[in-house]
Amino acid sequence: MSNLESVEGAILFEDIDSILQVKTDEKWVMQVNPNWQMLLVDHAHCERKAADFAINLIKSYTEYEVLQAPLSKLVREEMRHFELCLKYLKMYAIPFKPIQPCGYAKALHRIIRHERKQKLMDMLIVAAFIEARSCERFGLVARVLSQPQLIKFYQTLYQAELRHFQNYLALAFQIYSHSQVNKRIIDIGQAEAEFVQSSEAVFRFHSAIPI
Amino acid sequence: MSNLESVEGAILFEDIDSILQVKTDEKWVMQVNPNWQMLLVDHAHCERKAADFAINLIKSYTEYEVLQAPLSKLVREEMRHFELCLKYLKMYAIPFKPIQPCGYAKALHRIIRHERKQKLMDMLIVAAFIEARSCERFGLVARVLSQPQLIKFYQTLYQAELRHFQNYLALAFQIYSHSQVNKRIIDIGQAEAEFVQSSEAVFRFHSAIPI
Repeated sequence: MSNLESVEGAILFEDIDSILQVKTDEKWVMQVNPNWQMLLVDHAHCERKAADFAINLIKSYTEYEVLQAPLSKLVREEMRHFELCLKYLKMYAIPFKPIQPCGYAKALHRIIRHERKQKLMDMLIVAAFIEARSCERFGLVARVLSQPQLIKFYQTLYQAELRHFQNYLALAFQIYSHSQVNKRIIDIGQAEAEFVQSSEAVFRFHSAIPI
Repeated sequence: MSNLESVEGAILFEDIDSILQVKTDEKWVMQVNPNWQMLLVDHAHCERKAADFAINLIKSYTEYEVLQAPLSKLVREEMRHFELCLKYLKMYAIPFKPIQPCGYAKALHRIIRHERKQKLMDMLIVAAFIEARSCERFGLVARVLSQPQLIKFYQTLYQAELRHFQNYLALAFQIYSHSQVNKRIIDIGQAEAEFVQSSEAVFRFHSAIPI
């Protein structure tokens, strides 16, 4: 039984299809193979950013005991994935360097409210969406990639991101009322879907429809 | 053989006594037992801050391949220690909450130069000093504490901080010339010693002599 299933009323959002309001456009999928090397660089950055996000939550919400150990474990897992990305970058002789991010994280952060307790709820739900969308895209990448070792890597990560998505939602349901969280999942999901259905020139793991 | 020993010319700074210019004052040691609960809270914050410091280095210096995987492993270890602190806080029913930091980190950060490459060297050396001083103080705490389980915990951490100190210095020696690093260790060590020999009202893991 997952953490999420154990929280009564939260079962509504157990899988990514129940939370993501739109599926990724096929135009995005068609860009995966020509850009797989750059996606691996972006992926490494995403894992480090996910760890950073969780560490910041630990720091900013010290008084929420329920957050501390689960987020710390999540940081460790994200950094382990970061190291695996580095391993594959090295294996394929792809240089790891800073790259321009797509607009996804910025679009989601815009919807986060400023009042302290509301902010925490929104951050947990935004993190759940990022993990859910990562999960969907890892699945798509694993479907179309040509490199057998990377296919296996992304299949493994699909499971991890699914668990992270469930863990973030479970934390939100532990702290806030189910009706509050459910409502906010719909609102944030709408903003997420709007971004994913928009167009942008930068192609990344979480980017919108390629122009 | 440690990482450090493998770097020719770096062996000068193999143990903490060779890098720390002054020993902790006995007045600090005398405050350990009356303040052990608060020290455990501070310690949890220190582990999280150490992970944050390493993650920021990974982010800011993406182009230094030599840093990425070792720092990522260090982040994971610091977060594991953070979780152990949380376990002991829970065991002794000590609430984890934000606390005012002492002036140590601020005093060391003041000496960090701003030019990008010099900044990295200084940050690696400052991190080595923080780990070395932590190591020394974990040893002192383990010597005077009354709680057997915590004594064992701090003895284990003594070894970990010693390794972290060596790892940070090894990274500096891999990137910069030995003479540059050796000179900077002396300068930063002097600033560190000056702070440790000063006085302050706040008592923490890295605080100066208690007033």
